[in-house]
Amino acid sequence: MGGSKFTAKFKEVYNVLKSELLQDPAFEFTEDSHQWVANMLDYNVPGGKLNRGLSVIDSYDILKDGKELSDDEIILACALGWCIEWLQAYFLVLDDIMDSSHTRRGKQCWFRLPKVNMIAINDGLILRNHIFRILNNHFRGKPYYLDLLDLFNEVEFQTASGQMIDVITTLQGEKDLSKYSLSLHRRIVQYKTAYYSFYLPVACALLMAGEKLENHIEAKNVLVEMGTYFQVQDDFLDCFGDPAVIGKVGTDIEDFKCSWLVVKALERANKDQKQVLYENYGKPNQECIARVKELYKILDIEGAFLEYEKQSHEKITKTIEAHPSEKVQAVLKSFLKKIYKRHK
Amino acid sequence: MGGSKFTAKFKEVYNVLKSELLQDPAFEFTEDSHQWVANMLDYNVPGGKLNRGLSVIDSYDILKDGKELSDDEIILACALGWCIEWLQAYFLVLDDIMDSSHTRRGKQCWFRLPKVNMIAINDGLILRNHIFRILNNHFRGKPYYLDLLDLFNEVEFQTASGQMIDVITTLQGEKDLSKYSLSLHRRIVQYKTAYYSFYLPVACALLMAGEKLENHIEAKNVLVEMGTYFQVQDDFLDCFGDPAVIGKVGTDIEDFKCSWLVVKALERANKDQKQVLYENYGKPNQECIARVKELYKILDIEGAFLEYEKQSHEKITKTIEAHPSEKVQAVLKSFLKKIYKRHK
Ligand SMILES: [Mg+2]
Ligand SMILES: [Mg+2]
Ligand SMILES: [Mg+2]
Ligand SMILES: [Mg+2]
Ligand SMILES: [Mg+2]
Ligand SMILES: [Mg+2]
Repeated sequence: MGGSKFTAKFKEVYNVLKSELLQDPAFEFTEDSHQWVANMLDYNVPGGKLNRGLSVIDSYDILKDGKELSDDEIILACALGWCIEWLQAYFLVLDDIMDSSHTRRGKQCWFRLPKVNMIAINDGLILRNHIFRILNNHFRGKPYYLDLLDLFNEVEFQTASGQMIDVITTLQGEKDLSKYSLSLHRRIVQYKTAYYSFYLPVACALLMAGEKLENHIEAKNVLVEMGTYFQVQDDFLDCFGDPAVIGKVGTDIEDFKCSWLVVKALERANKDQKQVLYENYGKPNQECIARVKELYKILDIEGAFLEYEKQSHEKITKTIEAHPSEKVQAVLKSFLKKIYKRHK
Repeated sequence: MGGSKFTAKFKEVYNVLKSELLQDPAFEFTEDSHQWVANMLDYNVPGGKLNRGLSVIDSYDILKDGKELSDDEIILACALGWCIEWLQAYFLVLDDIMDSSHTRRGKQCWFRLPKVNMIAINDGLILRNHIFRILNNHFRGKPYYLDLLDLFNEVEFQTASGQMIDVITTLQGEKDLSKYSLSLHRRIVQYKTAYYSFYLPVACALLMAGEKLENHIEAKNVLVEMGTYFQVQDDFLDCFGDPAVIGKVGTDIEDFKCSWLVVKALERANKDQKQVLYENYGKPNQECIARVKELYKILDIEGAFLEYEKQSHEKITKTIEAHPSEKVQAVLKSFLKKIYKRHK
């Protein structure tokens, strides 16, 4: 995804929100804690691609159908976008601890800084709490305030629940490939990624535009479908992508991840091939990894992916075109265009 | 604190809430994750003294002034009480990781279980999210629902902020006694403990009774004052309490905690005595600990505590008696009675 006409404005709003949070009347900062939060925010919040955050204002702009946005609308849409970026930062800071990761967005993970360490856990909570400070500051009194709170609470719950299935299925000592299936994969992806990355930005824009979310269940389903598709691509690139392009060397095989590729391989494998997977998947050993990759070649998992990609794209397009509102169609299509056939 | 006539009913409601959470339509559990959450809840939520939780229904009962509570009211008040217990569990699970603690409520800390480890971080998030699932389930549609959400969000933010000052002041490598003062102590205690332990239960009861919280600022201030007093006792017992009675051996001195005792000692110490504190406070060494305790004796910190206790009790009583509502007075007095001159 990339390229929004609102990027500059969006980045400006970060500084406004940050300085509001650092003057929050609900807490009396000490000098040290003031400095700590300022650094922690700069380190963790604004360094990503900002796709999710920008999607709110981009979607809202489409929903307004050519009418120019007022300064107030721009700020509100940007604030909601930043809430999603804050949510993402909160999950990433904590996920990196759980995954013992080393780098994130080209820097050391926050918890790896010697001064930070396990304080990163509390920083995660602070990030999470900031979302509700921002919402309270800017949206209390709006007719959709309650719906916003419920939306963020529900999506946060779903994301944490998806993360839970992810971490307990890759649990050390209980590695069990027989539990891996398309249905488990779909569940992890849908809850851990799709709701907050795809549904949440559009839902925010719809609420700002005065819509009720219960009238947009089809949009939600299509967005979750796109999120699933996005993650299948991610799984594919982890193994078949060019490390120079995607910016990292994939580790899903050795990490025993419930990746779409292994699920598909299990589906296509005969008894002997299954045996190969059981013996080699999830081991941090170059030979084992190579044997899994070799099997993926034999089973033509790349072909399976290309077929999935084509079918999923067709299905999504059809559903979008059946949507009664042209503006919502336009929002959904702009999302699809951003992710289809990406290479990174 | 202890002894509520609602204890049995309160414990029953735990099982109701737990089973509702395990059937939450916002998430499709796998068999493993269903089991995981059930175990995680039983391990972390109901094992405490339940004082905070029971305070909601006890306070509400007083506010109803003799009128018998309906079944519905009992369930709602218990549900709010459990939300506070869930909030506490969430903070304790994560605090134990940050403090590298070993035991909690007579059992191994949750994250110490080999199977759990850093998954405990996500479990903390799940606990936190459950609060808003419970509120959504039982209170959406009530006239005070929005106030409840804002209350829990604000108090959670304040607790996490207090925890932040606590962890950054005890930061390894930056131990600096010159930063310790009554004002810093008051801030840590007020934010980290008093709001959620003292103000939150009463605020929940007030909302259920149809009150607006902005009309109860004095009650809030008194409760925060009681919470501070409670924590000063806690600091006192950490050093002077009987380990057989309080159930643990205090470690505030070696942990370099911003305890009321060290703050008071710094206030009373001459230059040489200050030097003793600077050289011995915060070192995990029996001799250093003994030297600090000896200095506390010389400076009669115990006497200072008894004086503080007396004055604080008088001041709190006076403020309570000046309160315009007799029912609110009764709620506040019942709190004070529970904590005054406790020995554990
Ligand atoms: Mg990770
Ligand atoms: Mg992870
Ligand atoms: Mg991946
Ligand atoms: Mg602790
Ligand atoms: Mg602690
Ligand atoms: Mg203590």
